[in-house]
Amino acid sequence: MLLAVKARRMLKSPYLLFLGNTTDPSYAKTAFGLRDWVPERCAGQLRLGAAVDLGLEDLSLEEAAAKGVATLVIGVAPPGGQLPAAWVSTIVAALNLGLDVASGLHTRLSQINEIATAAELNAACLHDVRVPREDYPVANGKRRTGKRLLTVGTDCAVGKKYAALSIFRSMQESGIKSSFRATGQTGILLSGDGVPVDSVIADFISGAAEVLSPDNDADHWDVIEGQGSLFHPAYAGVTTGLIHGSQPDALLLCDEAGKEEIYGYPGFKIPSLKKAMSVYQDVARLTNPDASFVGVAINTASMSEDDALQWLARNSTELELPCVDPFRFGVEPLMSQFMS
Amino acid sequence: MLLAVKARRMLKSPYLLFLGNTTDPSYAKTAFGLRDWVPERCAGQLRLGAAVDLGLEDLSLEEAAAKGVATLVIGVAPPGGQLPAAWVSTIVAALNLGLDVASGLHTRLSQINEIATAAELNAACLHDVRVPREDYPVANGKRRTGKRLLTVGTDCAVGKKYAALSIFRSMQESGIKSSFRATGQTGILLSGDGVPVDSVIADFISGAAEVLSPDNDADHWDVIEGQGSLFHPAYAGVTTGLIHGSQPDALLLCDEAGKEEIYGYPGFKIPSLKKAMSVYQDVARLTNPDASFVGVAINTASMSEDDALQWLARNSTELELPCVDPFRFGVEPLMSQFMS
Repeated sequence: MLLAVKARRMLKSPYLLFLGNTTDPSYAKTAFGLRDWVPERCAGQLRLGAAVDLGLEDLSLEEAAAKGVATLVIGVAPPGGQLPAAWVSTIVAALNLGLDVASGLHTRLSQINEIATAAELNAACLHDVRVPREDYPVANGKRRTGKRLLTVGTDCAVGKKYAALSIFRSMQESGIKSSFRATGQTGILLSGDGVPVDSVIADFISGAAEVLSPDNDADHWDVIEGQGSLFHPAYAGVTTGLIHGSQPDALLLCDEAGKEEIYGYPGFKIPSLKKAMSVYQDVARLTNPDASFVGVAINTASMSEDDALQWLARNSTELELPCVDPFRFGVEPLMSQFMS
Repeated sequence: MLLAVKARRMLKSPYLLFLGNTTDPSYAKTAFGLRDWVPERCAGQLRLGAAVDLGLEDLSLEEAAAKGVATLVIGVAPPGGQLPAAWVSTIVAALNLGLDVASGLHTRLSQINEIATAAELNAACLHDVRVPREDYPVANGKRRTGKRLLTVGTDCAVGKKYAALSIFRSMQESGIKSSFRATGQTGILLSGDGVPVDSVIADFISGAAEVLSPDNDADHWDVIEGQGSLFHPAYAGVTTGLIHGSQPDALLLCDEAGKEEIYGYPGFKIPSLKKAMSVYQDVARLTNPDASFVGVAINTASMSEDDALQWLARNSTELELPCVDPFRFGVEPLMSQFMS
């Protein structure tokens, strides 16, 4: 079963990042994420007209194919997440040149006839990374070998993916055996594998999370990207299921300094870091009695550097745990805990 | 919207309850529920080999058809909710005799070619009641008018549906404005309406629960069937999302006397009733700060009547709440709390 997942999900690199005719950089987060986190896999960019510039080499489809590009990755998500009709001919042309195509859009590539036909004719793969497999098992709750870290948040969009990727990169640099385990579409495109956990059928959330981080070497770390928040009135179910299936040994709390309410949900207060850690730890210990926090990642972008350093130091003292801002100051203070 | 759902869901009776080759009664909740709550609609049972016995008349498909049975209802749900291949020929034979077929499994009847073809040939209806609508919203967390009771459990299959139906029936008899809100396949088969919450896409669990119990009169009670358990390593995500979307004013804890571990999950201990209530109340108060327990429903089937009454009395004293066995002794001690 795991092999089947890999076979379907694993994107072949190098990638050509497709930006369509998108001019607003905020719709191109996936492309920027790939450029920043896996630059070695990004051979170039393909833009229709004056689209967002990633600073990568502009390549035509033909040039990309000649360079050995394996996958055209749609790196933008237009409002609504639908595939603009104007992009279909480019996608078909890529397939006809032997490239695979990957997308995290709502629109399934395989549901567009011209694209499906071209993929079949060329024996090319279409990767709809937002669409989960339909055969995840019910969780069995059995402990697995290897170590797992899960990032969890006081809210959505507080840096859970960024913190996980930072730790994973630091582990790789330190020679710690490790894998990044993606749970959202951008993470899946980044890592070439993963489970879009918020798109799984409710009964199978924990089962999908179990499949995501299988048995491994005793000194291997799975660094699992968190989703949602236990304090979010819409998404706490996803978060709960992901925690239980992940069975994390190590939890990293992610927070944004100064944020007081759940974004978009006035009246829903964000708890203190201490309270949040207590709630998360209780939930995690259902499936891993040893689950404990190894630190806190705080987005301090709203503060001056001095204030940020003071804020991290103060929280670190209060919580008796390393507190870091992965984007601003790195994750070094956490890393000694992962050495075996 | 409700009318459309009803039109889609409403099954023609009488039913023939199909038990397949299932020998474990805990997987036959649907069949037992229909037998107990709508006996007037159940004409008989169909078993393959030594399956669970409902105490109804054993009928062959031919005998059932001759008696005017309108629908073969699959009354069992194996773990994971998949349709065993061995049952396909029976389902096809039923369709060929002119019966409709209803299923609460995850496997869609209509996705199995032989079944879909037979249904089409015979102009018969396939009712996949576990298949949710696909347009539930993300939860908004806003409070709704009217009162809500949600049953929650120390484990799955501890009587959450029975307790909810018992209270609903008692409310109806007492003239209390009320609706039963089904969240599982059996409840939906019973009531002809509802949301199969464990089949909803993970991001929309709470949103679906919000849709299930809309604004209502201030003195109207929605009696919402609970799902899963916060202490279950596979299903706690579903439970969490259902609680948050339901925003219950009143919680009723359901338990099975003498049960010490989560069924099928050795090593996962069932907490004390007091601990369970504390955990549930904390989760429920995220979206309804007034959520409180109104009582405990305990399945005492394993005890003599004297022991059962003593057990209920002892727990009632300890927890300072009415403790009842809805199936054995009714829910009367709870009911005064719902009078306005």
